[in-house]
Amino acid sequence: MAIRTKLNDLLGIEHPVLLAPMAGVSGGALAAAVTQAGGLGQIGGGYGDADWLGREFAAAGNARLGVGFITWKLAQQPHLLDMVLERQPVAVFLSFGDAGSFAETIRRSGSKLIMQVQTLEQARAAIDAGADAIVAQGTEAGGHGGSRATLPLVPAVVDIAGELPVIAAGGIADGRGMAAALMLGAAGVLCGTAFFASDEALSPEGAKAVATAASGDHTLRSSVCDVARGLDWPGAWNLRTLRNHFSDRWAGEVESLKADAAAQRDIYASAAAKGDFDTAAVIVGEGVDLVTRREPAAAILTRMVTEAEALLKAAPGYVAAPA
Amino acid sequence: MAIRTKLNDLLGIEHPVLLAPMAGVSGGALAAAVTQAGGLGQIGGGYGDADWLGREFAAAGNARLGVGFITWKLAQQPHLLDMVLERQPVAVFLSFGDAGSFAETIRRSGSKLIMQVQTLEQARAAIDAGADAIVAQGTEAGGHGGSRATLPLVPAVVDIAGELPVIAAGGIADGRGMAAALMLGAAGVLCGTAFFASDEALSPEGAKAVATAASGDHTLRSSVCDVARGLDWPGAWNLRTLRNHFSDRWAGEVESLKADAAAQRDIYASAAAKGDFDTAAVIVGEGVDLVTRREPAAAILTRMVTEAEALLKAAPGYVAAPA
Repeated sequence: MAIRTKLNDLLGIEHPVLLAPMAGVSGGALAAAVTQAGGLGQIGGGYGDADWLGREFAAAGNARLGVGFITWKLAQQPHLLDMVLERQPVAVFLSFGDAGSFAETIRRSGSKLIMQVQTLEQARAAIDAGADAIVAQGTEAGGHGGSRATLPLVPAVVDIAGELPVIAAGGIADGRGMAAALMLGAAGVLCGTAFFASDEALSPEGAKAVATAASGDHTLRSSVCDVARGLDWPGAWNLRTLRNHFSDRWAGEVESLKADAAAQRDIYASAAAKGDFDTAAVIVGEGVDLVTRREPAAAILTRMVTEAEALLKAAPGYVAAPA
Repeated sequence: MAIRTKLNDLLGIEHPVLLAPMAGVSGGALAAAVTQAGGLGQIGGGYGDADWLGREFAAAGNARLGVGFITWKLAQQPHLLDMVLERQPVAVFLSFGDAGSFAETIRRSGSKLIMQVQTLEQARAAIDAGADAIVAQGTEAGGHGGSRATLPLVPAVVDIAGELPVIAAGGIADGRGMAAALMLGAAGVLCGTAFFASDEALSPEGAKAVATAASGDHTLRSSVCDVARGLDWPGAWNLRTLRNHFSDRWAGEVESLKADAAAQRDIYASAAAKGDFDTAAVIVGEGVDLVTRREPAAAILTRMVTEAEALLKAAPGYVAAPA
């Protein structure tokens, strides 16, 4: 069976499940595996590395793909968009910043324009920019995001989106979350954390092990990891990660961390290189409670869809004649 | 028609919808109206005022009711529990603190014990304390709460709750949210913001007007309002309100606010008395996008249930043979 919404036709997919284009995690192999299983894999363009992008597109073979960019970073190296559009991706996904002329360039290329937003105000801007679909991302998502939560944000975005498909993101890691998203009015889901520990993800093996054992009680949003990586994120966005020794030390003292940034960047980079996750961040969201084992991406997607199908088919059972 | 889950039998209700026992807002008239419409109304015991409680129980007439307490505050005036149990409420709802001996007292009284939690760790403690139902409350809720979000918290709590009913709270203000909660595995929903602007709510008229016009983009969690009200909240809990001039001034400077607390408490109290909501807080959550008019509580509940029924009955339509 399949789950069908208007998103299936827009993107030419069997199930309305998109891989979040996680920077450094969603490479070609993972994206291809998600597409192969009936969803839409998306390569994470991240902070922009043409060689990395070329390699990961190659690793995906001829799988149908999307590719995601951090909008404010893409604006510093717009040639990467041209490079990617030559490969004719199904969709280009933009998040975190003003799309400016990218929106028009992408739509004219024939790729679909998917814009991720964290507020209702940003959703209005995405509609005005001509997005083909809008991702409403809640604060419970891993990685960068905002402060609004998925459950109330999605229906509010749906109410202003008219016929545009809205995709729910943030906290969705199984079939229950997927079925819930459809009830909220979403036409599909975008999942990152659910695939973080998959076989094909480029996440370090040690980080996968930490993630599968972790509780969603132990994540936080902060700028600590960005400062420690020397990333100068604008606006109100920050990063959800698992808490660790380093974030506990600095989360309440980001200004002090900035003052000592040069030394702390060395410490952080060295820890990341060694796979020391007491210092380096494991970048997952609150859905990590539902991620309990390392397994192939196809198994994750198939289980999610199968569970959602069962819940949706049984849903009328909640409705009964009054007692 | 009705929506039925195991919560209906536990509480003797027609629809699994509970009124959040909002301090100073959920009085007897609102609680009775929610019960009358098929849910379970709950009076907000708040910070503990025996006269107020007696008056609001009287205002509810002989409606079946729950009553909610702030656990750490109840511990300072435990006689209020005895006073309430004499009225044989359907349920006593505890949130924010260690239930201690209250759990046993409530269960022995014949009232059901509903315990609200904000983390998975607290959910384990509530199960151990012998709760009859657990409310998993997400950070998007108005009023006091924690940092985890509803959508990923609910299924994680369901996974450890066994046969205990889990009630979803935070961000649920229409039938979409209710249907989504059921898909997440919840046996019902608890709603506060949805009823904040209802005719029967004790919220000031001016606050109702502000709430119906507000966007969920403009809420925040902070301790500002508690400090300004002289409330010494323990632990990691703080308050979600609409942002206003006062919260914008102080949210980044809570320590400075504490240093000037005496003067600021006067300013705040005076504003609250006058209905000046540039200074006094309107205590609602992110679901406020979906609250667009002042109307009877019964209309809100009936629309929520009717919408959820339609969504649940149509849910199998998402499942199709592969294209």
